[in-house]
Amino acid sequence: MSIVITTFPWVPDFAQGYVKDIRPRWALAEAGLPYEVHLVHDADSPDYRAWQPFGQVPAYRDEEVELFESGAILLRIAERSPKLAPRDAQETAQTRAWVFAALNSVEPRVDNLILPGVFHAGEDWLAGFRPHAERLVDLRLRSLSGWLRGRDWLTGRFGVADIVMATVLRGVQDQPVLAAHPTVAAYLDRCLARPAFAQALSAQLQTFAAHAPAA
Amino acid sequence: MSIVITTFPWVPDFAQGYVKDIRPRWALAEAGLPYEVHLVHDADSPDYRAWQPFGQVPAYRDEEVELFESGAILLRIAERSPKLAPRDAQETAQTRAWVFAALNSVEPRVDNLILPGVFHAGEDWLAGFRPHAERLVDLRLRSLSGWLRGRDWLTGRFGVADIVMATVLRGVQDQPVLAAHPTVAAYLDRCLARPAFAQALSAQLQTFAAHAPAA
Repeated sequence: MSIVITTFPWVPDFAQGYVKDIRPRWALAEAGLPYEVHLVHDADSPDYRAWQPFGQVPAYRDEEVELFESGAILLRIAERSPKLAPRDAQETAQTRAWVFAALNSVEPRVDNLILPGVFHAGEDWLAGFRPHAERLVDLRLRSLSGWLRGRDWLTGRFGVADIVMATVLRGVQDQPVLAAHPTVAAYLDRCLARPAFAQALSAQLQTFAAHAPAA
Repeated sequence: MSIVITTFPWVPDFAQGYVKDIRPRWALAEAGLPYEVHLVHDADSPDYRAWQPFGQVPAYRDEEVELFESGAILLRIAERSPKLAPRDAQETAQTRAWVFAALNSVEPRVDNLILPGVFHAGEDWLAGFRPHAERLVDLRLRSLSGWLRGRDWLTGRFGVADIVMATVLRGVQDQPVLAAHPTVAAYLDRCLARPAFAQALSAQLQTFAAHAPAA
């Protein structure tokens, strides 16, 4: 059995290109590992919940293990790829640290800046909440900028931590808060210029195009 | 050199017992591993930022590696402890998945329900934001409850995933949203009844008591 990842058959336009199976797709493209896509038609089914308890995507399975959460999936993929695997104990530690940092210290702040405008447009608390959310993103990007000064990648070489961080930063790609941190913006550009990102993006969009509801 | 973790010398009362060095303290108490505490007097210093790029606590160091982010630290501690180490590839995968789930799928929602009331009390967007934040926590606890039905712990035996999840759930320990999910509330009680949690809590409070500012 080859590697299997899950995604939804289709999502609305604003989410296309941003569904989190983009992360394993990108890592697998970097690694040159083939994979199959399992489409989740019912995220609430007991079978899927036994695999992904929150009904989210992606989940992952290979010939040895099954798991969920894109961070954990990318650590697994890295271990199976000579190109992505950390090269020593310290690089392993730093890779994990940065995957967690992207998903716990940065992504929740980015989500708070972006998602309310998508899911709660027009609600009257938004205007009061937004400056607070933007300030927290700005603080994190300032710290990230400090780390990236003089570095091309988060750890010693490009790896899964960069894939996770770049997919998080895409959330603010067109926001003034990213432009205010040119070191971080340049890092994001560097990540997204990789051919494997383009392959992953195209693969995700192709899945959704193949399952678009009739107009 | 033994294991070193960082924390702040002192924090205000509302945060005492909840600073995230409680996580490695708990894991190290379960593992029976000794550790030293390094107090962070200047979280913005270049030296500390080279260790913890966001100026947060805890950071971690042992004789082989240094790293940051409590999730990554707990995976490292688990590997060094026969008592906490996952026993096979699938338990390793599930442990990682649940540590990420606690920190990415659950904690950000808990933080959104709790932190605004602490840091933004009285601001006029709070009343509109709160029901939205509570609904997202409720959704996650419902999923978690489904997983925990018939299970004592998140994976095959008590481990670092439970430590991280329990410290996240403590954020809503007194909230109606937790009481609405008795399976999760009972799980949290089971985790917090472990002697190693009491040891960790007491150790953290002792550090802060020893460095309390003069009244």
